[in-house]
Amino acid sequence: MSKPEAVLAMQPDLPQRLFSPAALDRLQTVASVDPDVVVSELSTAEARACLARAEIILSGWGCPPIDAAILESAPALRAIVHAGGGVKGHVTPACWERGILVSTAARANVGPVAEYTLAMILLANKAAHRMARTYADRRVAVDLLTEFPTVGNYRKTVGIIGASRIGSRVIELLRPFDLDVLVSDPYLDGAAANRLGVELRELDDLMAESDVVSIHAPALPSTRHMLDARRLALLRDGAVLINTARGSLVDQDALVAELATGRIDAVIDVTEPEVLPPDSPLYELPNVVLTPHIAGALGVEVRRLGDSAIDEIERYAAGEPFAHPVAVADLERIA
Amino acid sequence: MSKPEAVLAMQPDLPQRLFSPAALDRLQTVASVDPDVVVSELSTAEARACLARAEIILSGWGCPPIDAAILESAPALRAIVHAGGGVKGHVTPACWERGILVSTAARANVGPVAEYTLAMILLANKAAHRMARTYADRRVAVDLLTEFPTVGNYRKTVGIIGASRIGSRVIELLRPFDLDVLVSDPYLDGAAANRLGVELRELDDLMAESDVVSIHAPALPSTRHMLDARRLALLRDGAVLINTARGSLVDQDALVAELATGRIDAVIDVTEPEVLPPDSPLYELPNVVLTPHIAGALGVEVRRLGDSAIDEIERYAAGEPFAHPVAVADLERIA
Repeated sequence: MSKPEAVLAMQPDLPQRLFSPAALDRLQTVASVDPDVVVSELSTAEARACLARAEIILSGWGCPPIDAAILESAPALRAIVHAGGGVKGHVTPACWERGILVSTAARANVGPVAEYTLAMILLANKAAHRMARTYADRRVAVDLLTEFPTVGNYRKTVGIIGASRIGSRVIELLRPFDLDVLVSDPYLDGAAANRLGVELRELDDLMAESDVVSIHAPALPSTRHMLDARRLALLRDGAVLINTARGSLVDQDALVAELATGRIDAVIDVTEPEVLPPDSPLYELPNVVLTPHIAGALGVEVRRLGDSAIDEIERYAAGEPFAHPVAVADLERIA
Repeated sequence: MSKPEAVLAMQPDLPQRLFSPAALDRLQTVASVDPDVVVSELSTAEARACLARAEIILSGWGCPPIDAAILESAPALRAIVHAGGGVKGHVTPACWERGILVSTAARANVGPVAEYTLAMILLANKAAHRMARTYADRRVAVDLLTEFPTVGNYRKTVGIIGASRIGSRVIELLRPFDLDVLVSDPYLDGAAANRLGVELRELDDLMAESDVVSIHAPALPSTRHMLDARRLALLRDGAVLINTARGSLVDQDALVAELATGRIDAVIDVTEPEVLPPDSPLYELPNVVLTPHIAGALGVEVRRLGDSAIDEIERYAAGEPFAHPVAVADLERIA
């Protein structure tokens, strides 16, 4: 087993988050790498010295674009192993043209987003946040059976938009519960949906039939504002929309207008722009749970990304193909 | 198959919550019962007329105590099928002395409480409520990796106090996740804990080793304030305590004092008293999620209680034993 030369390219403080001490040891057994050298500017003299020898770039958040000029100074480069999700930010067309192998740890993001979504679906059906707010506002007994007669995780319908890796994992995690699950995905047919144990619907029908809708579609030009004013109006009264994917998938002005009527609730983890202006009504609407893009890997979960990247380097060093390769053709339908 | 005479004894508006129209039809196929007669006072003339013939009392919340005087007017009574959880409120010693069969739908409460707990564990490890509050307060970008370096559902330790039906179901629901689970229960040995896939601990050790602690012990004189000031002080800095069981299990003054320091967080669904006085600090502490006793069956989930009770009457009518009987000996260790 060879020990390829690798260089870390990411924001300077990231390696300590990505790698536990044990993981860092393992990285050094599978690659020849100096973990104290973290390149965040690829054009410096130090970076060029590293790149001159590197067979692998182990990239993370904050890795700058690897363009033709950079590639020229990296004659030995054969692979970019990304300890993160999307690769469009730093893997440029020049990389694909040169046939650089690319791997992603996007799968390590699947668990956290799916787990967060599951928790929010269970609490959404229960109207937990609405009840907490009602209790705190009134500070007297709340007649729950009379005021919330339709809540509960029993024979409710959950609509999953996008049978992506994350959407499929949410579907899997929903199995132990008494819930009916619908899915909408242009790449899925009815038989495949049935294998997932769910029913396929057109998006409009899914919007109209679901008690909770959670979106797990990729952010692409073709999916921008896929939930527009017309589709949001299809939601049932009292329905809950969950967005842990990307803000661009929802027409945010239309969503705010719909939420302002109090007709629906929302759990919003992603917005446009990503940090909302201080006067956004989403900070204060009582029927909104707003979080600062936290569903994905965070804190110790980030170590899954690091562990996944080391696994890929180990495979590469053993002459095996990546378990999670990215091909240029994939870019049209992934985030 | 005989069709036993049954009478509904519960608060007047409850049957419409417990039984869907289809369930009400099914109830009438398994028992001779007038669903429009709902007895909430057992000593009225109408109640006595019903009781004179009843072989089964189908009880629910608000059923008054079935004491010796009531039993005298119910010579045919053989069973009390409770479409609810605890039976101590209405099944008196006189019932046990006469050998009345008792069944509970407590199991139907297991799913909702366990589901709610699962959701709160996943969000607790993620510090989701703290992050939501931080974002709403600041309305600027939050450096999540720096400010929340230890969050995440990855190799965290969850401590379950009480391998009750609910505690065991929580343990089961935690299986798909990358979490280590500890359990403390005086009725469980290490081998039984391992069969559940978890590790047994003394309660003090569980408190000290867990990132999240969820309590699922019965409320008994012997468990009152089992989480006292000393045990709460054993919790790690940043740990989260979840109580969906009963307020009496926790020394609430000690908990409020610990929470006021900001050292730990809490998810509190049950308190003493059950509706807190308007000046309770629990309404306003930023590290507390306070809900008005909502984890159990609510809304449409209540129909699970009704469905379960009808199943039991069906078994009784077919001459089979109850699937969920209560024996007088059980009362010492159940809520």
